[in-house]
Amino acid sequence: MKRLFMQEVATRDGFQNEKTFIETDDKIALIDALSECGYAKIEVTSFTSPKAIPALRDAEAVMAGITRRPGVEYTVLVPNVRGAERALGCGIDEANLVMSVSEPHNRSNLRMTREQSFAQLTDVIGVIGQGPVAVNVSLSTVFGCPMQGEMSADEVLAWIDRFAALGVRGVTLCDTTGMAYPSQVQALSRQVRERFPHLQLTLHFHNTRGMALANTLGALQAGVDRFDASLGGLGGCPYAPGASGNVCMEDLVHMLDLMGYQTGMDLERVLAASARLPGLIGHDTPGQVLKAGRRLDLHPVPEHVHTLSKQVANAERG
Amino acid sequence: MKRLFMQEVATRDGFQNEKTFIETDDKIALIDALSECGYAKIEVTSFTSPKAIPALRDAEAVMAGITRRPGVEYTVLVPNVRGAERALGCGIDEANLVMSVSEPHNRSNLRMTREQSFAQLTDVIGVIGQGPVAVNVSLSTVFGCPMQGEMSADEVLAWIDRFAALGVRGVTLCDTTGMAYPSQVQALSRQVRERFPHLQLTLHFHNTRGMALANTLGALQAGVDRFDASLGGLGGCPYAPGASGNVCMEDLVHMLDLMGYQTGMDLERVLAASARLPGLIGHDTPGQVLKAGRRLDLHPVPEHVHTLSKQVANAERG
Repeated sequence: MKRLFMQEVATRDGFQNEKTFIETDDKIALIDALSECGYAKIEVTSFTSPKAIPALRDAEAVMAGITRRPGVEYTVLVPNVRGAERALGCGIDEANLVMSVSEPHNRSNLRMTREQSFAQLTDVIGVIGQGPVAVNVSLSTVFGCPMQGEMSADEVLAWIDRFAALGVRGVTLCDTTGMAYPSQVQALSRQVRERFPHLQLTLHFHNTRGMALANTLGALQAGVDRFDASLGGLGGCPYAPGASGNVCMEDLVHMLDLMGYQTGMDLERVLAASARLPGLIGHDTPGQVLKAGRRLDLHPVPEHVHTLSKQVANAERG
Repeated sequence: MKRLFMQEVATRDGFQNEKTFIETDDKIALIDALSECGYAKIEVTSFTSPKAIPALRDAEAVMAGITRRPGVEYTVLVPNVRGAERALGCGIDEANLVMSVSEPHNRSNLRMTREQSFAQLTDVIGVIGQGPVAVNVSLSTVFGCPMQGEMSADEVLAWIDRFAALGVRGVTLCDTTGMAYPSQVQALSRQVRERFPHLQLTLHFHNTRGMALANTLGALQAGVDRFDASLGGLGGCPYAPGASGNVCMEDLVHMLDLMGYQTGMDLERVLAASARLPGLIGHDTPGQVLKAGRRLDLHPVPEHVHTLSKQVANAERG
């Protein structure tokens, strides 16, 4: 019964990709429901510029409105010093910093070179300081870049090294566009765990090519115990229109529970929270357990089977 | 580089669930295209009563029309002695017999008790005899029944024992409604391989709850080397409206190729064949690699990145 730690990203990674603005009160109510589900961490929102990501322009109001549950960490995305100052004013538990290990992806996504990003994030870490707020760095495209292709594991390790030297608590290996495959995940996760045993390591999968749950098995085999996922599988990918988004939280928890892992999650509450999403975002979500039911949500025996039973019983009697 | 054997079920398990009748010529053209893809086996059609499954009422015409490629086995579903006689008249390579290890599922799906099914399939095996036509038995709901719930591994092994005693070449463990999970798949596959080392063992997954690729990893860890899958992920499940069907062939091959397995498949041809499906069946399919592209199908670098590159170059120069 290995203990795993589940981290929800729907209200940040998911909502920032939605065209509909989700009302602040609805965000707060959803996060409050999520706080009762057993998460280790919830990525609440992003302190990016309201102009850059209008969907999350209410970051302060959301942080002020939610009811914090002891034992749950509330993390937020922080892109720069201005964002760090705003986030610190809200009493966050953790700042999640993002850059890509791929030069063209970082330029495309963040409109900076990787060195410019690193300099900016170094400043952010300086502002956050050694106080009570933890720092996590999410590294994008570590399993492949949609423009550059294969990424070198050595280069990924070198970037982790630079952030580890700055004293961050954790790193997240992000499969930003669903290019990871299980044996690759296992190999890279093992290297990172061996070289950085003191870092809190999270794996962040997208289900773009259907491999997210298989990749989770690869990570588990390497001893990873911490996973990002998104309620309902929210969070699209601009390079794969029509494809799935983040790995779906309830589908992931459903599988892990069945395998005997101790996720600490209340799957029924997670499913109930996921069922609220279509009403908030105005469309269906890619999650499958919500549609199909949990494995042992049984179905009634059809009427003709009872009739058949009587025939068989009569035949056996006669 | 372990050799795996891929078996296509779309034109039987997939098409029999479609509302639209697919024209005989279209079926033949699709199967001929599939014959060039590297499959070990193709389940062409079903010799059930045309009244029971009108979608496959053209079984003889399809079998007569396809061009058989040496090295590919052409198998068909055979439900009873009448079906066996029709199928033998078409020169099949293998007869695929089906029953469920769950009493309520067998009654619901085949409208017989399991003992009635076993007696009928024993007659079919007698008709096929010890000639050149192989017999495979597909056992439904071995990983769970949507009406009964958990299935006992001992009961599954007992059914395999009874068919092994009749001299069948192979058995297929079918996760008919997507209830299997990876550790369960690994444990049951291992038991079957240990107890029946001479049987050709196939695993047949449905992606109802998103676990099909993860379950494939469980089977691989138990040494399984033969997998059913369906082009485009065709093949719905009546107990899970809106959920996925069979595991998607191209998504499965894409993952296995990346992991270094030798599938013998030409993924490009498989994708081209899958791209024909929406035109035949009148709706989208759940496959993801067709939408997202293969892992290394790269995307162009956006224009603003080039502009940025010039700025950076100028800054570095200046």
